[in-house]
Amino acid sequence: MKPLSPTDQLFLWLEKRQQPMHVGGLQLFSFPEGAPDDYVAQLADQLRTQHGVTRPFDQRLSYKLGQPMWVEDEHLDLEHHFRFEALPTPGRIRELLSFVSAEHSHLMDRERPMWEVHLIEGLKDRQFALYTKIHHSLMDGVTGMRMVTRMLSEDPNEMGLPPIWALPHRQRTGRDENAPSLWRSVAHLLGSSGKQLGTVPTVAKELLKTINQARKDPAYDSIFHAPRSVLNQKITGSRRFAAQSYCLTRIKAVCQAYGTTVNDVVTAMCATALRTYLMNQDALPEKPLIAFVPVSLHRDGSAEGNQVGVILANLHTDENDPSQRLMNIHHGMQEAKDRYNHMSPEEILNYTALTLAPAAFHLLTGMAPNWQTFNVVISNVPGPSSPRYWNGAKLEGMYPVSIVLDRLALNMTLTSYNGQVEFGLVGCRRTLPSLQRMLDYLEDALTELEAAAGL
Amino acid sequence: MKPLSPTDQLFLWLEKRQQPMHVGGLQLFSFPEGAPDDYVAQLADQLRTQHGVTRPFDQRLSYKLGQPMWVEDEHLDLEHHFRFEALPTPGRIRELLSFVSAEHSHLMDRERPMWEVHLIEGLKDRQFALYTKIHHSLMDGVTGMRMVTRMLSEDPNEMGLPPIWALPHRQRTGRDENAPSLWRSVAHLLGSSGKQLGTVPTVAKELLKTINQARKDPAYDSIFHAPRSVLNQKITGSRRFAAQSYCLTRIKAVCQAYGTTVNDVVTAMCATALRTYLMNQDALPEKPLIAFVPVSLHRDGSAEGNQVGVILANLHTDENDPSQRLMNIHHGMQEAKDRYNHMSPEEILNYTALTLAPAAFHLLTGMAPNWQTFNVVISNVPGPSSPRYWNGAKLEGMYPVSIVLDRLALNMTLTSYNGQVEFGLVGCRRTLPSLQRMLDYLEDALTELEAAAGL
Repeated sequence: MKPLSPTDQLFLWLEKRQQPMHVGGLQLFSFPEGAPDDYVAQLADQLRTQHGVTRPFDQRLSYKLGQPMWVEDEHLDLEHHFRFEALPTPGRIRELLSFVSAEHSHLMDRERPMWEVHLIEGLKDRQFALYTKIHHSLMDGVTGMRMVTRMLSEDPNEMGLPPIWALPHRQRTGRDENAPSLWRSVAHLLGSSGKQLGTVPTVAKELLKTINQARKDPAYDSIFHAPRSVLNQKITGSRRFAAQSYCLTRIKAVCQAYGTTVNDVVTAMCATALRTYLMNQDALPEKPLIAFVPVSLHRDGSAEGNQVGVILANLHTDENDPSQRLMNIHHGMQEAKDRYNHMSPEEILNYTALTLAPAAFHLLTGMAPNWQTFNVVISNVPGPSSPRYWNGAKLEGMYPVSIVLDRLALNMTLTSYNGQVEFGLVGCRRTLPSLQRMLDYLEDALTELEAAAGL
Repeated sequence: MKPLSPTDQLFLWLEKRQQPMHVGGLQLFSFPEGAPDDYVAQLADQLRTQHGVTRPFDQRLSYKLGQPMWVEDEHLDLEHHFRFEALPTPGRIRELLSFVSAEHSHLMDRERPMWEVHLIEGLKDRQFALYTKIHHSLMDGVTGMRMVTRMLSEDPNEMGLPPIWALPHRQRTGRDENAPSLWRSVAHLLGSSGKQLGTVPTVAKELLKTINQARKDPAYDSIFHAPRSVLNQKITGSRRFAAQSYCLTRIKAVCQAYGTTVNDVVTAMCATALRTYLMNQDALPEKPLIAFVPVSLHRDGSAEGNQVGVILANLHTDENDPSQRLMNIHHGMQEAKDRYNHMSPEEILNYTALTLAPAAFHLLTGMAPNWQTFNVVISNVPGPSSPRYWNGAKLEGMYPVSIVLDRLALNMTLTSYNGQVEFGLVGCRRTLPSLQRMLDYLEDALTELEAAAGL
């Protein structure tokens, strides 16, 4: 029996029927060489026998004197958590994304350990997929991604690899306290009162006071300038998930031509795609969109190792020229990193907290403040750079499926794998119609940059 | 724009994440003669073009001055409501039931018209299925079943039959005000205060007073005698759906042998199956289980046509002998009907309301009273007696998928179709493990009665 941390309690507290608080991941595999046609059904039969469920997958919620605790589920019903499912004809990626969109919209049962693994057959070209869904209070996305990687092997001949819920226990699992997290910052803002979420109105009042002071302070003035946009409406309960791989070699060639980082280029791709998407809806704000981008800050000589910060990246969606947009983003990111280099850890924490304050205020009170600090979350989590296998099946792609929130109707999470950049976009399906078109716009954005550089 | 009735508001108000308030139906079809292998995919393509959504399927919730209203959804996204899906290998009825169990557990999006139709391919033996899910505030189960029947034809050659959401509008659609309904009785109990559900505590207090008076009244004493059982625990959010067809000819032969009605025999089958199920869990109460059975009361010479009443059927689960159990049930049902024959409509309404009072009190307050009037709902809704077709595809079976509630963890709803009695059992998966075994126990119960009658 272990009490939930204030951050983890926050995920329970923020969850509503139109705002589920689980994260997910989609993995695409090809059949091992020489596998029979009913390979996936055989795999399902094997997985159904994997009853040795390890931490934290055996933990369910329980309340003791009003305090939420994790306790072991003594009646764990694997059939509820592991599900074997199939795509309808013709079994394209489109049907897969549509399946994940629907599943990602559903709340999980709080009486049971809050995770599900869906093994999906019926994909064309001898492929299959795993969609894993875990409540954010049980595990964050970065940890989830790491566990998914731990499940895999670099050796196509290694067999007997268990599924994620039966991984042998490691000394240091659970969440990485240094990973970038919007949530930990929100919990930091709540401070010690985070433990008593009943006092939220008081906390929110304090928060509002801090924000109003900061807005008057010229040093922080620049962070309250995100425009209003359709991305920042109330959300509904249905989701659209869109995902695609883009070739890292192409992106690196663009980096070299412009003298930028990979992160600059993918951020510019997102910026251009968002610009096209909003222009087609006649909904592009005059002022540039601002993205919330968690970054790792390598501070030389620092004993703490990686510090984590948040960059409010100006996406320059008001700029017409794609190359200029990339260069502007590059300079903006560079400036932000330089600014961090001159800040103390204390100042970084304060700065991060302030960028989050309006969003936190809204999440806590349901009231929409008159200002916002960002429009969209663009998060990039590194993944394995060489091929991975699961019991002989080659991993072809892996895509994050994150969370959207009221007033943050779109989340763009990226990862990298074996020479690919993997984009996973999640949006509120009602607020952001035809989100899947963004995949084409991302491709167009890359092609434009290549063309402008003469590649 | 139309305000919701007090009864319909109740379904919104009672809904929680572990207690979704939608009803469903599962229809099993066989391919038309000579249909191609990709018949279901072609059907899906046709259905995707059926954008002419008719009442009430185009209605979504909206609030005006705090009052819930039905308004037309002007941005109806058919892709959200109509879903083409597939069963995993080997595509047996077992995989179909498992699919429906999972889907029936999910809450619907309140921002949209609250219905979904799932077209399911991948069944063995050239079959396919439709699972239709409708929020109880939009349509009750009986009306839903009728609309599903209206969708079908007696003629295997009739083509161009629209799906349920595009049926031409009829003069008298919506709910049948004479249909048996636990819910209408609950709304009746709430009386005029039903309109202001904010005053529920007051209503609950009044209700409690009425119940306590009735318990002292010898005339009503008999209705407060249902035992405690595992069927009457708090429920969780996950469901198990089990369904099967039983041959009406066999059931009728048993009726003839014992001189009972079809309804007596199916009630006895339910009783025996429940008895076996609970005995295997070492959880059979000493006192007999009581079932809530809505019945139509044909009153000769009455101008009102069908009156509706509720029988609290003693299931005689304390009786060891199956034939004796059937005869006891038969006599009990007969007595209850005779009693109704001597009651005025006013008295019937009062009696019905009282049988429901403890359940209503619990639903409204969340407090578990010390007494209950019934343990399980057994509902029998008549269906078509001759074969039906949908654009040439023969309907092989149709099964109701109903609602379970806190302290009513099992619902057994039956219908009839073309020489079959169709059982649809829905239960809380956690409270009632391995509910699917009830299907075998129902079959055993019928076989036992046949054997005892020398059939």
